[in-house]
Amino acid sequence: MKATVVTIGDEILIGQIVDTNSAFIAKSLDKIGIEVYEMLSVSDDREHILETLSSLQNDSDVVIITGGLGPTKDDITKKTLCEYLNDELVTDPLVLAHVTELIEGFFKRPITQINKDQALVPSKSQVLFNKVGTAPGMWMEKENTVFVSLPGVPFEMKYLIENEVIPRLVSKFNRPYIVHKTIRTYGIGESLLAEQIESWEDNLPDFIKLAYLPSPGQVRLRLSARGTNEGALYLELDRQVEKLHEIIGEAIVGFDDGETIEVVLGKLLKEKGLTLSTAESCTGGKIAATLTSVSGSSAYFTGSVVSYATETKVNVLKVPQELIDKHSVVSVAVAEAMALGIQQLMKTDYALATTGNAGPNKGDADAEVGTVVVAMATPNGVYSEEFNFGQPREKVIDRAVTKALEKIYKEILKN
Amino acid sequence: MKATVVTIGDEILIGQIVDTNSAFIAKSLDKIGIEVYEMLSVSDDREHILETLSSLQNDSDVVIITGGLGPTKDDITKKTLCEYLNDELVTDPLVLAHVTELIEGFFKRPITQINKDQALVPSKSQVLFNKVGTAPGMWMEKENTVFVSLPGVPFEMKYLIENEVIPRLVSKFNRPYIVHKTIRTYGIGESLLAEQIESWEDNLPDFIKLAYLPSPGQVRLRLSARGTNEGALYLELDRQVEKLHEIIGEAIVGFDDGETIEVVLGKLLKEKGLTLSTAESCTGGKIAATLTSVSGSSAYFTGSVVSYATETKVNVLKVPQELIDKHSVVSVAVAEAMALGIQQLMKTDYALATTGNAGPNKGDADAEVGTVVVAMATPNGVYSEEFNFGQPREKVIDRAVTKALEKIYKEILKN
Repeated sequence: MKATVVTIGDEILIGQIVDTNSAFIAKSLDKIGIEVYEMLSVSDDREHILETLSSLQNDSDVVIITGGLGPTKDDITKKTLCEYLNDELVTDPLVLAHVTELIEGFFKRPITQINKDQALVPSKSQVLFNKVGTAPGMWMEKENTVFVSLPGVPFEMKYLIENEVIPRLVSKFNRPYIVHKTIRTYGIGESLLAEQIESWEDNLPDFIKLAYLPSPGQVRLRLSARGTNEGALYLELDRQVEKLHEIIGEAIVGFDDGETIEVVLGKLLKEKGLTLSTAESCTGGKIAATLTSVSGSSAYFTGSVVSYATETKVNVLKVPQELIDKHSVVSVAVAEAMALGIQQLMKTDYALATTGNAGPNKGDADAEVGTVVVAMATPNGVYSEEFNFGQPREKVIDRAVTKALEKIYKEILKN
Repeated sequence: MKATVVTIGDEILIGQIVDTNSAFIAKSLDKIGIEVYEMLSVSDDREHILETLSSLQNDSDVVIITGGLGPTKDDITKKTLCEYLNDELVTDPLVLAHVTELIEGFFKRPITQINKDQALVPSKSQVLFNKVGTAPGMWMEKENTVFVSLPGVPFEMKYLIENEVIPRLVSKFNRPYIVHKTIRTYGIGESLLAEQIESWEDNLPDFIKLAYLPSPGQVRLRLSARGTNEGALYLELDRQVEKLHEIIGEAIVGFDDGETIEVVLGKLLKEKGLTLSTAESCTGGKIAATLTSVSGSSAYFTGSVVSYATETKVNVLKVPQELIDKHSVVSVAVAEAMALGIQQLMKTDYALATTGNAGPNKGDADAEVGTVVVAMATPNGVYSEEFNFGQPREKVIDRAVTKALEKIYKEILKN
């Protein structure tokens, strides 16, 4: 079974907006075992749309189209689909009543011809009733292909996918089961990880595919199993994850897309009733911002001192000036003094500190661009490690944030 | 001239990640007058890739491909491109030296065969040297089409587009002139802005297009002029911007894509020799992180206290406990005390403070979800303003950050 997702709209082709609809549709189809073979973005242009439709005819079982259903002149999807299907546009009375109610009852505006035209649909289409907007979705069949047309406004598209499109696809098509499992690893680079798990990967059964999804400081591994016996797929995935755990257990932090390091760390701190604070120089507050992006983080995170200036390190964090003079601001000694300083100031069980040079220039710190020292103050003492995260600046900061969170998570887990 | 952008990767087709690369590439091409005719996302599948390449052969002048260049087994773009071009993979000595230096010199790991294979490129390709990663970009020509292959990691792709691909395209192809001008506005919502500038917009000449690019707390207006006389385009754009300035001058903060509020504010502080510190509760360090994302920010930004816990407000920022008891943590009184507290602690000319409830729950603060107070301590006194930024959590935080930076920028500008 083959599905194609088509986005129509000039704003995507000039890069003005990022197409997020296609990912949502793909994820929804994937959940019911329908594979998206290809995604396409085309312009609001009659010939381009017609060409695209006929190239997909009988090649895709389902074509899901978003965009171009608005009321303005540049929206030509409906008219063009109708032309492609040799059909004519007729007014759907239920949609017209709904549009009238929305415009006159809700927005309190007189209804115009442009509004009324929203209720026009190809005569042979099935209307996908759009409760949350004025443009209806449409389900059309031609030979061996189903064409579904949806508005491009994300929440209207989502409403129609969930409430109208998915139920119809489920009842129309027989599909295999697809089960996914994501494994979040931290602290091992992609190629090193690939080497460590090579023989495990080589021995995966044919019906399981593995993908590597790297981002700064972490790699997500995604296993996808496909088959007709759903229970067997789950069992086999669990078995494979268990094997993987034996090889790289230390690097595995979570299993779900939502289980980011800040979420997993937050859960652990809450569970153990522990508190955390941070003293940040080169990360500039981003560790704090990442921790507080999790709702409920006030239960374990007391706060941070972003000590960008040397005086702040001395005056607020009580780092001895002699230490800075002797070792420079980017040093193990200063990082550890910062961690101890914030731990004491905020009276927390654990504390993290960072100092480094994120670049692009060497600055007065005398440390190479990309050098970062991460220190942890724990109830049992203070530890630190020096890294070099290269460049550019943005990457150095992101990697330092991820590394700091990873280190403290693994430290607390040990105790 | 016709360009196509192709993304390769199963993770996109199952909706696990949103493709942001294509929009970046389209925007970059658009700036130099190259129109993207279509965007495609295809799977990590040999036949599918080959089919796609041959369907674009001689139909597109340029095909820009991202993804599938990683070191792992699911990455097959390079091998498949090589097969398509009837070429063979050879080791590029410069790339090998760079990869070796990165792995051994920088990551301090022994180099492996997988790493070395990153230096393999089709013998007839031009290498686009990737300073910021291990996978090189490649420029290949076949008949009337240029194929460019880039890594999918966004910052590597961006580096190569800006430094290698765009300059080569500019020198290879004749294009009409497209001149863009971006106007950054802060503090007026999109529809109100549209109303205020309606008659200006209606009177724009035909060869100038206007786009609205809204994001939390700001709207960028982009003017694009297209024609054969570059000088005339610049002149007309300047004329139009001047007119616009007469209408909404107060809201305009910068004119360039790089002139974000944090960059413009930083320049202003530097120019005037002033310093800034922040005390953040609901923004959790994100104002500091935003300020320090600008290199050289240590010249004017001394640091921040992220006072997530009430005790931190009292102990570190010296906010009187009675004030909190009387007015609650989310209040004008507490926000102003925080601003004064950090101004004094860090001895800065200006200080910003935020306190609020970012949600999703009401919590113990008793303030409605979305409520944020922004306070500014200046050399002449302390000022504050209360906002409601709605929800979700992420949007509340982002809007609070933008609003705080906007307020202090406009305040300093006045003096």
